[in-house]
Formats: sequence, C-alpha cells, structure tokens
Amino acid sequence: METKIVLIGAGNVATQLGIALTDAGYRVSQVYSRTKRSASLLAKKIKAAAITDLAKIDETAAVYIIAVKDDAIAEVAKKLRLEHGIVAHTSGSVSMDVLKKASKNYGVFYPLLTFTKDKKVDFKTVPICIEGSNKATSTTLQYFAKSISSNVQLINSDQRKVIHLAAVFACNFSNHMYAIADDILKKNKLSLDILKPLIEETALKIRDKSPAKVQTGPAVRGDKKTMEGHLKMLSGDKKLKEIYKLVSATISESK
Amino acid sequence: METKIVLIGAGNVATQLGIALTDAGYRVSQVYSRTKRSASLLAKKIKAAAITDLAKIDETAAVYIIAVKDDAIAEVAKKLRLEHGIVAHTSGSVSMDVLKKASKNYGVFYPLLTFTKDKKVDFKTVPICIEGSNKATSTTLQYFAKSISSNVQLINSDQRKVIHLAAVFACNFSNHMYAIADDILKKNKLSLDILKPLIEETALKIRDKSPAKVQTGPAVRGDKKTMEGHLKMLSGDKKLKEIYKLVSATISESK
Repeated sequence: METKIVLIGAGNVATQLGIALTDAGYRVSQVYSRTKRSASLLAKKIKAAAITDLAKIDETAAVYIIAVKDDAIAEVAKKLRLEHGIVAHTSGSVSMDVLKKASKNYGVFYPLLTFTKDKKVDFKTVPICIEGSNKATSTTLQYFAKSISSNVQLINSDQRKVIHLAAVFACNFSNHMYAIADDILKKNKLSLDILKPLIEETALKIRDKSPAKVQTGPAVRGDKKTMEGHLKMLSGDKKLKEIYKLVSATISESK
Repeated sequence: METKIVLIGAGNVATQLGIALTDAGYRVSQVYSRTKRSASLLAKKIKAAAITDLAKIDETAAVYIIAVKDDAIAEVAKKLRLEHGIVAHTSGSVSMDVLKKASKNYGVFYPLLTFTKDKKVDFKTVPICIEGSNKATSTTLQYFAKSISSNVQLINSDQRKVIHLAAVFACNFSNHMYAIADDILKKNKLSLDILKPLIEETALKIRDKSPAKVQTGPAVRGDKKTMEGHLKMLSGDKKLKEIYKLVSATISESK
C-alpha cells in the first residue's frame, strides 16, 4: 500500500526529506508553503501538488510533516484539524505538545543534520529522533524513519532538548571557532584552506575516541608561554581574548 | 643519490614523518630519543639505528629533523654543532632562531595535522609550512617536503604564529566544544554518537563555503527563547554558561 505524505514547509529540511522519502518509494501528495514560488519549486522536484492555503490540505495522507521555522510551528499547527494521520514536526527544540490539537496522533521526526537546499543528503547514517503521542504513533514514525535511515532512535522531549543543547556546542559553536580562525587568518592575508585538513581530522578523530582524551594544544599541555603569546596577539579584540581565556581555562580544568 | 635523514625525537610526529619519508624512498639513518625504548621502537619500524646520546649523531646526514616537545627543542639544539646538513624543527609556535647555533642552515618543517603514533597518516594533502635561514635551505626543505605532500607552503615565522593561533581556535577549541557536548550528553545518559554525523558534516561543510556564511543555530537566528532555555539548562555550571553567552554574543555580532 502506498503511504501518502504531506509536507508542510519547503525549506532546507522539507526539501531534503521530500527527496529522500520520494526516493524511498513514498508519495508526497502536497507541498505547502506560504509562497507559491517555494511550494512549486519543491513540489515540481518530487511530483507533488503545491498549495499555499492550509484549508486545501489533503486529508487522506498518512503522515503530515511540519518542517517550518521553529517559531512558526505552533502557528501552522493551529490551522490543522486532522481526523486521520500523524502530524510530526522536525525541530530539536520545540515541544511535541504544540501539535496537540492538530491530530490525536502527533509526534516528532527530528533528523540530526544541517541541511542546505541544493546539497542532496544521504540520510542512511543520519540519526532521526522519534517521539510519539502514543505507542502506535511512535511505532509508525519509527517504521517510517527506518525506510530512509538506519539510525532511528526513540528520544523523549527532555532528551531531545539535551541533544539540541549539546549540538549547539558541538556544531554551532565549533563552526564559530572555524569562523574566528578564518577572521584571524584573513586579517593576516592567509587563507583558512591551510587549516582544513586539520579541521577535518579533528572531527574524524572522535569517531572512536573520546574528545577529552584526544585534546591537544597549549591549554591541555599547560604551556603558559604559548598562551601568553596568543593573548598578546589577540590584544586588539577583547571578546576573542575572553573566549581564549575562558575556553583554555575549562580545557585545563578538565584534564 | 640517497638522501640521509636523522630523526631527533620518537613521538607522534617523528613516527609518522619517519614512516612517510621511508615510504618516499629516503633513508633514515638514526632515531634519537632520551629513552632507548622509544628510540628502538621507531628505529625498528624504519630500519634505522637507535641512539640515546646526541654525541653519537651521524654527521653526514642531509637533514636533521627535530620533532620533540616545544619546550625541549632549544635544549636539544644546544647539543648540536653540525658542519653539514640542515636542521629543522616541526613546531608551529617555536621560533626558527632557537636552531641558530646547531648549523648555519636551519629552518622549520611544520606539518599542519594532529598525529597519533598508531594511526598512519597520509601526508599527501597535509599542509607543510617551510621556513629556511637562507634561500638554499628553504629551497631544499621545500623540495624535501614535496616528496611527501602536494601542499607545501613557504611560511615565515610571523605567519606561522598566526596559523598556530588560528589552529588553536579551529581545532583545539572545537575539540573542546565536542568534549563539552559529550559531557552534557553523558550526564543525561545519552551518547555523543548521535551527534557524530552532524559534527563531521559541520567540518566538511566549510570545504567550499566560508564558516560565517553557513553558521546555524539559535544565536545567529536571534532565537532568544531557545537561548534562554539553554542557559537555564546550564544553570548548574557557571563556566559553561559563560562560554555559551560569550560565544553566542560573538556569533550574533558577526552576523
């Protein structure tokens, strides 16, 4: 039996999910977006109908995936009153309960990756965190997620919040560390390219080793001379100096 | 003509360099270490002689690579008085001039990667920063480096210091961000495994995009509600809270 899906949202996550689900043999019947242009752009790619009015939603779908910005989820959910089907959002930080009134079967389908519209994602190894308002819903959502990923996990709302906070450190903040390095190099007419192999190696190194155990650098060595030199080089930038001091201090404390 | 090399040091960098240079057809005649055990361990791998006394150094080698801890480089260099050959250290932060008295031809051979003894490194894409006390020395060191890597760059001491500082942010500090994430997850009985695909994607994403442009997360979105929630979750840890605030502030400022 063909499982019908409706995608609410046409951004990065919706686009990549839509493509992966279509590839896995599902039929996406509709793509909703506030603007005709983005709805059509994605709908065309996956042979779905584009809609810009939630009143016209296909009420016979099995799963409705809400992949819109975090602060728009509740607003969209308010406009849904579905008799059948499961409604799930894809957010790491929004509570499942904002979907309560959209359907009696609701849940979360949170893929742990960053997405861009134009880069096709191989979902096979992407962790997908599932939560359901009842057992049948979480079972169905898990089954559904397993058709695109081999890394599907039941994660409750509290755990999901912890994972999201950890992801801010591990991903958002480390990306900002790359950005700071990029700035420092650019100011000295050097390119970040020279650090890219090292950046990738650093990320790959923790595949099988705990990050605390493979920590390198002056802070973990207690190399005060080098750290003083670095702080001198950063003397023009108060914020960077503070970050350098603070992070070095927690590194040396966690030895 | 076979180029003879002496390795001073038997740690991670010396081990990986020794293997790569031997693979590239060079002959490492000696490996020096303070302890017989580590000297022999590496010497055996690359068919060299192990020495623990610098007075017994082979004075007919073309290149002497000092790959010991930063604060031991000057000390080792003091014991060397070479008539021939180039002496180079492998450090990112130590000045070239500590080698001044070891030979009239001295320089830096700084491979930009993190090394572990038991993981063989493919040097082909590893940036190697070269500096020489004179033109002939830097030319020879470049030629030498090019035999193992296709990414060899002439970098002077000031530039090298900038690169090293940038590497502390991009690599040491991002690894610490992984460690913080690991801690947060462990305290909640979750595993860092769930974030690893995202961590790797974050590092790979900047291959062709500037990190500032691909910054994601609550700080860059100005999502105050999520940030307040995160700070609440971190309320038991003053230092982590400070890092969260400070890094979020610089992210939102750099928008």
